[in-house]
Amino acid sequence: MSSLDQFLEDQAPEFEKQLFELLSIPSVSADTAFHGDILKAADWIEAKLQASGMKVERLQTPGNPILYAETPAVDGAPVALVYGHYDVQPPDPLDEWITPPFEPSVRDGNVYARGATDDKGQMLTHVLAVTSLLEQGKPLPMQIKFLIEGEEEVGSEYLEMVVERDKELLACDCVVVSDSSQFAPGVPAVTYGLRGIAYYEIFLQGPKQDLHSGTFGGGVTNPANVLGKMIAALMDADGKIQLPGFYDSVVELSDREREEFAGLPFDENRFKEQLEVDGLSGEAGYSTLERRWARPTCDVNGLWSGYQGEGAKTVLPAKAGAKVSFRLVPNQTPAEITAGLNALLKPLVPPGIEMQIVEHHGAPGVVFSLESPFMEAASTAIELGFGNRPVFIREGGSIPVVNTFAEVLDCDVLLLGWGLDDDNTHSPNEKFSLADFHRGIRSSAKLWQTLAQMPAN
Amino acid sequence: MSSLDQFLEDQAPEFEKQLFELLSIPSVSADTAFHGDILKAADWIEAKLQASGMKVERLQTPGNPILYAETPAVDGAPVALVYGHYDVQPPDPLDEWITPPFEPSVRDGNVYARGATDDKGQMLTHVLAVTSLLEQGKPLPMQIKFLIEGEEEVGSEYLEMVVERDKELLACDCVVVSDSSQFAPGVPAVTYGLRGIAYYEIFLQGPKQDLHSGTFGGGVTNPANVLGKMIAALMDADGKIQLPGFYDSVVELSDREREEFAGLPFDENRFKEQLEVDGLSGEAGYSTLERRWARPTCDVNGLWSGYQGEGAKTVLPAKAGAKVSFRLVPNQTPAEITAGLNALLKPLVPPGIEMQIVEHHGAPGVVFSLESPFMEAASTAIELGFGNRPVFIREGGSIPVVNTFAEVLDCDVLLLGWGLDDDNTHSPNEKFSLADFHRGIRSSAKLWQTLAQMPAN
Repeated sequence: MSSLDQFLEDQAPEFEKQLFELLSIPSVSADTAFHGDILKAADWIEAKLQASGMKVERLQTPGNPILYAETPAVDGAPVALVYGHYDVQPPDPLDEWITPPFEPSVRDGNVYARGATDDKGQMLTHVLAVTSLLEQGKPLPMQIKFLIEGEEEVGSEYLEMVVERDKELLACDCVVVSDSSQFAPGVPAVTYGLRGIAYYEIFLQGPKQDLHSGTFGGGVTNPANVLGKMIAALMDADGKIQLPGFYDSVVELSDREREEFAGLPFDENRFKEQLEVDGLSGEAGYSTLERRWARPTCDVNGLWSGYQGEGAKTVLPAKAGAKVSFRLVPNQTPAEITAGLNALLKPLVPPGIEMQIVEHHGAPGVVFSLESPFMEAASTAIELGFGNRPVFIREGGSIPVVNTFAEVLDCDVLLLGWGLDDDNTHSPNEKFSLADFHRGIRSSAKLWQTLAQMPAN
Repeated sequence: MSSLDQFLEDQAPEFEKQLFELLSIPSVSADTAFHGDILKAADWIEAKLQASGMKVERLQTPGNPILYAETPAVDGAPVALVYGHYDVQPPDPLDEWITPPFEPSVRDGNVYARGATDDKGQMLTHVLAVTSLLEQGKPLPMQIKFLIEGEEEVGSEYLEMVVERDKELLACDCVVVSDSSQFAPGVPAVTYGLRGIAYYEIFLQGPKQDLHSGTFGGGVTNPANVLGKMIAALMDADGKIQLPGFYDSVVELSDREREEFAGLPFDENRFKEQLEVDGLSGEAGYSTLERRWARPTCDVNGLWSGYQGEGAKTVLPAKAGAKVSFRLVPNQTPAEITAGLNALLKPLVPPGIEMQIVEHHGAPGVVFSLESPFMEAASTAIELGFGNRPVFIREGGSIPVVNTFAEVLDCDVLLLGWGLDDDNTHSPNEKFSLADFHRGIRSSAKLWQTLAQMPAN
């Protein structure tokens, strides 16, 4: 065992203590009631970085704190920027958690808590690898910069502005982000592509108030019936999305990618068992992995109208609404989707209904070249950290700022996921394997060594 | 002014006091939290009937109290049975009420409260006409029986059983029900037809729990998307309901009925203004009144799935559900509708979704002959009470037990509505015109005189 490995192993109990502390702070960004905890989480990370001797700046925005810190510059070595986020998804539905979402609890080698894997646990692997070395007076072989924000789960509203404004400060040769998954337990992965997103709310207003469905039914346009028609119109029976021009700019999978995906050890039966479903469905002509990683989607994320209580209430609802999002692949843009959604739905608005479409966050998808030398360096580091060479995969989720990094900082982004697909991100009982937490810390420490051997820009 | 008219006019303030007392009791039958208030409302009516000298029975059921009372038999005169209900709809959404739903408040000659018109106010017109005469020692010219229940808003589960079991006790020449509307202010109406109902909940279960719509979207069947497809499949673009065989047993409107409806002073522009809608839609080939009164419908009454809170949450929901009801016309039966709904929806269940259809209350529609002598007697009484001869109309709502009365007691049912279409039944700010309340009491008192002149069965 190398002295670095030994050192990290000795620190393991302390690393877990730090992780549990941060997971105990309910830093939910979607709900303003938790704003105090957002600040508390930012303070915690700031204190952690400062304790290792780094100077921490708060990059000025009207939003939640964005923290910046850096290690000393190293002549002739490249510079890496680590990005992560300390905010988390809302924990609802609370009654489905086995242990409370903000009381980290270890079962079967996993820590259960909201944010365990997305992204506090994964982000901390880099923070702890770097700060523990600095605290021991061990110099890093290259400069590492940290950019840690608190609005990722609500669209990173100010981050793009900050990256544009502070691009000199943030200048680097590559960005490192750990906010994704391994391919499977024991099969680490470098993720070379992410889907984008375009998220909308559709509001339909019918009569001024709920009406008696007997007295008025049949003669008054029912917004809930209309909403059903609209949702149905979004996709055809083959799972093809019906927005005009939706597929025009889609970059199709290459033959090499389709072959590589097909060669991965993906067990569709086990996947169905995990989800407790008797079957899967999706866009005709594509495999499940292709559908999840590299094809655009349309999912209803929420629906509401009329009476939702117990029993039967005979109302003709005044209002109906849906949250609908599209996952995008290169080269689709959210603006195209907005135009297509309006073009599809506006002709479906019947007499007696007013429609409003509210646009939430949007970001295009991104794919990095498999041939980049940074990919090779990351691959080597992960092999040292996890014991296995990683596979190259794509991921269906979105990290909207990854596009911004690639474009504004003109660099590759290394998406090194330490999580697992069944970690329940955005769901009750989110978890993170403690073994993977430590492997992530080890891979992070190795990564600075492998990257340091590459020439600076 | 006749002595009866004078007497009723003198009693007017006392009648209003009684009405407000009953309206103050939140006797919501759909929510078990209000069970104590259901009992309180039953006690109140029992005490009222007893105070006039009538003996009150509670007809035994496992449900909410069903009250029975009768005036003395009159040889050679017919017998009428007055049916009404003391339970009310839930008052939600509470924040849309101008004054609290169970604190009766008078504005512009109307009393505002849940149950004002449906059905406490209308039911009380008959109770007060009869009890006030009895209290004054004035004999009634015929026997009047009362049957007043507390589960009408949740499907009158036990009433059918009671009518069957106690049909000797309830025997009568006609049933009188005031739980519907005039055609317009100043245009009283006898309602000769009601629509039936078949009410369902559709539950869809997808994956075992909410999933991240990025990681899983596109590869896992989304129950909210499927629910949209199902709702859309219920009706075509012409508003024709797509359940197999849905129209097979529908009795079409006669030419006479279509002409009479067309001759009514219905102002479609005013109707749209009242509802604050820019247009109406419905089944192709029928007028708005025909659609509301005499054509079957399909309305979504409630919808839910996924995230309904503020902002954007990227979930692929585990579950989705809808409350869907059909209004029926003769000779459709709820059993036919259940079969048709299953036949339509089952083939639409894709891999990865389990569907459950729960059946709530159902009742067929009913239409009485315009040529019946009871219709003529009622018409005369209303003209005396309101000052105008009534029109003959149909009503889109359901009073499921009306069918039971007609079939089991083998008699006509007189549907004499004192309400108005804009009374906000089942909506916030339910109201009842106090002038119509008093006209209803007067019409009730006159009705016993006109009916008494008819031969007994």
